[in-house]
Amino acid sequence: MTTEQPSGPSEPDPASALAADVAAAAPTIILVEPQLAENIGMAARAMANFGLSELRLVAPRNGWPKKGAHSAASGAAHILEGARLFPTLREAIADLHFVLATTARERDQMKRVYGPEAALSQVAERLEIGQQVGILFGRERAGLDNDEVSLADAVITFPVDPGFPSLNLAQSVLLVGYEWSRQLGGAIPFGEASRSPPAARETMLSFLDYLEGQLDAIGYFPADKRAIMIRNMRDIFHRRELSEQDVRTLRGAIRALCEGSHGTKP
Amino acid sequence: MTTEQPSGPSEPDPASALAADVAAAAPTIILVEPQLAENIGMAARAMANFGLSELRLVAPRNGWPKKGAHSAASGAAHILEGARLFPTLREAIADLHFVLATTARERDQMKRVYGPEAALSQVAERLEIGQQVGILFGRERAGLDNDEVSLADAVITFPVDPGFPSLNLAQSVLLVGYEWSRQLGGAIPFGEASRSPPAARETMLSFLDYLEGQLDAIGYFPADKRAIMIRNMRDIFHRRELSEQDVRTLRGAIRALCEGSHGTKP
Repeated sequence: MTTEQPSGPSEPDPASALAADVAAAAPTIILVEPQLAENIGMAARAMANFGLSELRLVAPRNGWPKKGAHSAASGAAHILEGARLFPTLREAIADLHFVLATTARERDQMKRVYGPEAALSQVAERLEIGQQVGILFGRERAGLDNDEVSLADAVITFPVDPGFPSLNLAQSVLLVGYEWSRQLGGAIPFGEASRSPPAARETMLSFLDYLEGQLDAIGYFPADKRAIMIRNMRDIFHRRELSEQDVRTLRGAIRALCEGSHGTKP
Repeated sequence: MTTEQPSGPSEPDPASALAADVAAAAPTIILVEPQLAENIGMAARAMANFGLSELRLVAPRNGWPKKGAHSAASGAAHILEGARLFPTLREAIADLHFVLATTARERDQMKRVYGPEAALSQVAERLEIGQQVGILFGRERAGLDNDEVSLADAVITFPVDPGFPSLNLAQSVLLVGYEWSRQLGGAIPFGEASRSPPAARETMLSFLDYLEGQLDAIGYFPADKRAIMIRNMRDIFHRRELSEQDVRTLRGAIRALCEGSHGTKP
């Protein structure tokens, strides 16, 4: 073992270990009277995309479970199957300590209004001190009513175009999930393919010497402009931040051209 | 006129003026062989949510225009009607200077990989120096193929759960729109209702004096604990950061209770 590990079963995959931590302390998504099973399914999919797993449904309009949710969830069935059903919003939030209400409309209520980033930063702070946090999403057409908003500690709204503010239900959930992921560091699942390091200056200069030598051999440079043309060409390649592999690829292509046409001006 | 204005027609609404600026220099969304009209419509809606307007479609699988797109766009018909159709991706990006490809899968290509925030920061920089920028989104099932990715300058990927990385097409567009909005400052369309300022300390102390006086009148405080109980109660209210209106509301409620039960211990 090269690093200190907590006791218990070993966790070979750091990503799995992170996922387990997230599931242990993440906000609960609460859909209030959602109408369409497809939207519930898409909300579950959006949750799964960003590592959220606890879903609560308050009195879905067309009953629950409901056909159509699973196919829309595209594989996030575990979230739908674990969803908890509540007859009222009060019951759905009874065990929570901090509740945020999403809304696209201004309410006549003296409540804090957060953008998604500030809201999820609050959420992360609350979770860190052991609080249970829930985020409310209203009906597809009408959103949350004012009494429902009044049960929340604060409001989340999104930085939308004021002329076109209405977000689809699953898309609101997605943005909350995305900001949650950003709170956790927002690591993207892969980076630049890194098989080849940046070209060392030696590789680059050797390539340029080769290229210039070949061009000299076919009389490419007019004598009075040779120096400036070479400087310009070197600059083209230096600016590209080429990798070792890039330089090998270019050198191979140029060698092939030279061997095919050496001594013959096209 | 109280502020300096550019010449030309007056812009009474600062939000409209902002929207016009955005339309003038914003990334173009390019959907490559999208299959379902509903997804094209939902992508248009997501664009409209965040002030994006230029949509290009490369060889939609089921033809174009196509029934179903408009209803899914939920009012973003102007984007669908302005969408430009191209037979190939090369033609769709011919006039662009900087092209990003969205993908959930690692590619065996030596390309820069950005998260959404870094990507849209690049986009904003390019737009600022007058470049035309496009962002590619692949097919619903298969995404972009490697040849298509190779036409891009860099890759955007999202900070998803590696175990559940597949985003719905419109949701990828939404996240790009959201990050675009964040680049523009991410202003939310409304804030806290601000009709009542925070309570001045005078209002608060007057309220507490009233409350304590009423509690004294009914013999609520044991003499030996009066001082500490008052300190604790004052602390409860001070911690709440109450507004003037909050204090008036509380005072009214307490007065009503006192008038209903004054002199009578319940």
